[in-house]
Amino acid sequence: MKTEIESRLAALRKEMEKAGVALTIIPHADPHQSEYMSSHWHLRGFFSGFTGSAGTLVAGMDEACLWTDSRYFLQAGLQLEGTGISLMKEGIPGTPTIAEYIISRLPAGSTVGIDGMQFSINAERELRSELESHGIKLVTDFAPADTIWTDRPALPDNKAFIHEEKYSGESAAEKIAKILEAIKKKGADAILISALDELAWTLNMRGSDVKYNPVVTAFLYLGKGDSTLFIDGIKLDDKVKAYLATNGIATAPYGNVAEFLASLPESTHVLVDPASTSSAMVKPLGKRMVTAKSPIPLMKGTKNDVQIAGIRAAMKRDGVALVKAMMDIESMLSEGKPLTEMEIGRILTKRRSEQPLYFDDSFGTIAGYRGHGAIVHYEATPESNATIKPDGLLLIDSGAQYLDGTTDITRTISLGNPTDEERHDFTLVMKGHIALGTAIFPEGTRGSQLDVLARRFLWNEGKSYLHGTGHGVGHFLNVHEGPQNIRLNENPATLEPGMLTSNEPGLYITDKYGIRCENLVLTVPAFTTDFGKFYKFETVTLFPFDLKLFDVTLMTDDEVRWLNEYHKRVYDTLAPELDAHERAWLEHKTIPLTKNNQ
Amino acid sequence: MKTEIESRLAALRKEMEKAGVALTIIPHADPHQSEYMSSHWHLRGFFSGFTGSAGTLVAGMDEACLWTDSRYFLQAGLQLEGTGISLMKEGIPGTPTIAEYIISRLPAGSTVGIDGMQFSINAERELRSELESHGIKLVTDFAPADTIWTDRPALPDNKAFIHEEKYSGESAAEKIAKILEAIKKKGADAILISALDELAWTLNMRGSDVKYNPVVTAFLYLGKGDSTLFIDGIKLDDKVKAYLATNGIATAPYGNVAEFLASLPESTHVLVDPASTSSAMVKPLGKRMVTAKSPIPLMKGTKNDVQIAGIRAAMKRDGVALVKAMMDIESMLSEGKPLTEMEIGRILTKRRSEQPLYFDDSFGTIAGYRGHGAIVHYEATPESNATIKPDGLLLIDSGAQYLDGTTDITRTISLGNPTDEERHDFTLVMKGHIALGTAIFPEGTRGSQLDVLARRFLWNEGKSYLHGTGHGVGHFLNVHEGPQNIRLNENPATLEPGMLTSNEPGLYITDKYGIRCENLVLTVPAFTTDFGKFYKFETVTLFPFDLKLFDVTLMTDDEVRWLNEYHKRVYDTLAPELDAHERAWLEHKTIPLTKNNQ
Repeated sequence: MKTEIESRLAALRKEMEKAGVALTIIPHADPHQSEYMSSHWHLRGFFSGFTGSAGTLVAGMDEACLWTDSRYFLQAGLQLEGTGISLMKEGIPGTPTIAEYIISRLPAGSTVGIDGMQFSINAERELRSELESHGIKLVTDFAPADTIWTDRPALPDNKAFIHEEKYSGESAAEKIAKILEAIKKKGADAILISALDELAWTLNMRGSDVKYNPVVTAFLYLGKGDSTLFIDGIKLDDKVKAYLATNGIATAPYGNVAEFLASLPESTHVLVDPASTSSAMVKPLGKRMVTAKSPIPLMKGTKNDVQIAGIRAAMKRDGVALVKAMMDIESMLSEGKPLTEMEIGRILTKRRSEQPLYFDDSFGTIAGYRGHGAIVHYEATPESNATIKPDGLLLIDSGAQYLDGTTDITRTISLGNPTDEERHDFTLVMKGHIALGTAIFPEGTRGSQLDVLARRFLWNEGKSYLHGTGHGVGHFLNVHEGPQNIRLNENPATLEPGMLTSNEPGLYITDKYGIRCENLVLTVPAFTTDFGKFYKFETVTLFPFDLKLFDVTLMTDDEVRWLNEYHKRVYDTLAPELDAHERAWLEHKTIPLTKNNQ
Repeated sequence: MKTEIESRLAALRKEMEKAGVALTIIPHADPHQSEYMSSHWHLRGFFSGFTGSAGTLVAGMDEACLWTDSRYFLQAGLQLEGTGISLMKEGIPGTPTIAEYIISRLPAGSTVGIDGMQFSINAERELRSELESHGIKLVTDFAPADTIWTDRPALPDNKAFIHEEKYSGESAAEKIAKILEAIKKKGADAILISALDELAWTLNMRGSDVKYNPVVTAFLYLGKGDSTLFIDGIKLDDKVKAYLATNGIATAPYGNVAEFLASLPESTHVLVDPASTSSAMVKPLGKRMVTAKSPIPLMKGTKNDVQIAGIRAAMKRDGVALVKAMMDIESMLSEGKPLTEMEIGRILTKRRSEQPLYFDDSFGTIAGYRGHGAIVHYEATPESNATIKPDGLLLIDSGAQYLDGTTDITRTISLGNPTDEERHDFTLVMKGHIALGTAIFPEGTRGSQLDVLARRFLWNEGKSYLHGTGHGVGHFLNVHEGPQNIRLNENPATLEPGMLTSNEPGLYITDKYGIRCENLVLTVPAFTTDFGKFYKFETVTLFPFDLKLFDVTLMTDDEVRWLNEYHKRVYDTLAPELDAHERAWLEHKTIPLTKNNQ
């Protein structure tokens, strides 16, 4: 591999020389600005050998560096060894940003080349302004992989399928009408949709092009009378073709977007979202381009009544699957059968896949035993795969894609007798989880305003976690979606009724344990008063928290009451779907806590 | 007055015609972008007759309108009657923004004229981009008052004086060196300071040009070897002149800034803060202009140890003055002497002015009795001035400028037997006040993240207040200052050790009562752990809350404990400064609450 990477970099530098490019930037990105993408777009991996989900290669004529974050320092260090590529550790004092690095390396008058398909309009603009203020030119049509990567994986050719209206609750025609109405207010006649989940939602169409994300690789242009889906024909069966035709949507090859945009009348104004649209994609629009936030994330984020009913039903099936999986796990442990982190993932997938309407997992299960639980984005590999023993903490974060909803749940369980420290820390995390889950807030509130409710019990003791407290969750779509989230950073999106968001505070003690408690919550109306409309959260995830881990002396009466009511609801909802043995297990797991029972 | 306004508008329109201007915008603003300003700059008042602190006049050839917010709907309605100026109620659905109004009124090709001295760089840029996108031209040298307002008040000619280093804790020379170092990092060699409080802080210089704000009307240019204070010579006595000379600062007439900037070498880069600098002021800079956030607000906002010691001392004297004033008020009420809202302001000013180092009040006292307390920015006028009776709630928000610190305190007191509703609401507000005051938070936390701690008890019951929970407070300077605040809206400024901020949640029940509980809090280090640095607040204001208004059944043990400890500290700190009679009064006002005493 090392020599392969060296020869790929040599070929890259030859192309750079030919193109008059002194330095190139190759991010892990696709023309849809996806969080996860098909292997066709793993350009950064091809040129660097690094396989992590986050990281950017910067190659000059004499030097190449890879920027990645703390999750990947170890892995990147190993994978880059011997390639001549240096590791740049993001977030470590003294590590320059990519722009700072380039400015320090290149003299004014140099040219940086990128493939504009891999950069959003916003990212390209920011880079350009930083470089140009130092006299460095940016060209955006440098796509060397086209000639060097001869065995590049093809674009996925999986079949698209229709997400039926009995699940989506709204027809594609209705959604398209709403979108065209919304963009009119922004001075646009048409919209180009690049984000795969926005496209999937708009057309009620799904696929399996990206692992865990049921999306279809395509672009969608919506206009008056000339709506066109740019997609490889092989992905469309007759049913889908007929469906598109019925909805007045023409089809064209995936690669024809630029040509199509260039042929539009000068008077057509096309809205493109600068955060989710590649700069190179929309160059042909010229003055026809209107850059504005897409109206779709907000529409997609606020689930309708049919979707909400589906989410509740999916949560019930997910809870049943989790009961069965957790019983499997406990049996294996008590019977002394070998159990590993990876095996836990397989058990969960198996139990979920037995449930009706299961389609896939919604992400790779994180099963982190003891110290592995403290690695926030840990996913067990054959090398790391720890054997679980009946002792210590185990963090399990997992979820599924059902046709009627997407789930995402984290539970932290004690496999033996928890220590006082473990119970103390777990209870602090749960106090935050309960405080956020029971918040009432006025219309117009942003997630960043509520975030502290989940953190303050930890902060009071000088503890914290650095990940977000909550992310939006799609409906049989990506498990991470916008527009809303609940985190330290500001995000202007407000929490609106119908939004599905995770509530997942945590605490990570290096080499010892990780704790995370995650339910999904729906924003729902609370009441309206003289002071306006107020909203609250309805917790929709259904599975008990580990009773052994609560230190009730740290809890208020209200917190204990919340937990007991939640557990009663979990039991009452799941019990009718369980056999007697399972019911008994769940009853035991949901016994009410009292403040005097310890 | 009405006919005067009509003739002023007629004269204005003549000037507009001469200048080819179809419409002009006259805000309540000065060339320093001040919150409060001297009467010389009351242009909007001159042309409209409206005297409120917020509002903008927009005059076309046939129509004139005044935009103001809900605080002033009543007053503006009365003052505009008969002038031909229409009232535009900001924040009411259907009221257009000024830009929307202009776009709806003027055809493309029209010209809007403003006095660029009254618009910050940011405000001008935003207006220009909105107008130009509709083909409307903006000229920024339309200053009609120069010819029309013949008896315009002169600029204030009050004397400047030095704020001694024993109070400021840092010499002007040290501050200037720090500023020049900071702007170098932003690529600038010099800085033009327009904001009067930034100037006052930098030079350790104060004045009395603006009511309640001890500032000096001037501009300050800091560069290498050519630092210049632009100020009317009459304001400088020999001592101040010598002080400026010692600090290497030349002086020049107030009106000479443009000429000076135009004469700078092309290679000089001058930093100007686009939020606090008038667009017209810096036009002569051309390419020499570097627009960036001024580094001064953060330096000024983080008080040094000498300032902090001064603040603590000032709080003690302010607490003593408040004890005496409140005893005066109680005596007058119990003796049946007539007492009005305005009289309360006079008593507070008198008692504060008896204290050493008193300079002025820090703002006009708000004494709002019963329903008046619900008017958030209420200031009693001879017309509204209510007579206080021994019954109902009274809200008193007041503060002083001492040479060693600025105070700002609000107390809500019950003059008779409070109702259950009053006690309930007061206790909710106090629970928020205590939660915010006892927060612990990591380095890097913004005020908007903590704001919910003060609001959530109200939100839980569908109640709220719309003003900010906290504003920065200057040191013998403006009672409102940046960069930090604690409010619903996002503000990227973080809470840093040494910052002084108000903690003032409230609740306002129209026509019934207003409740606000305000202390000032200092950000101080809490502890450092494996997770980083954590900060907390130290409450520095010293005066009891009204014990009668607490409903302890709504309070946690921790909240009662906080109150009792705070009251003990108030007593212990103030008692040595009081006579026996006053001590007895304060002892009674600070009796510990217990959870069983009701």
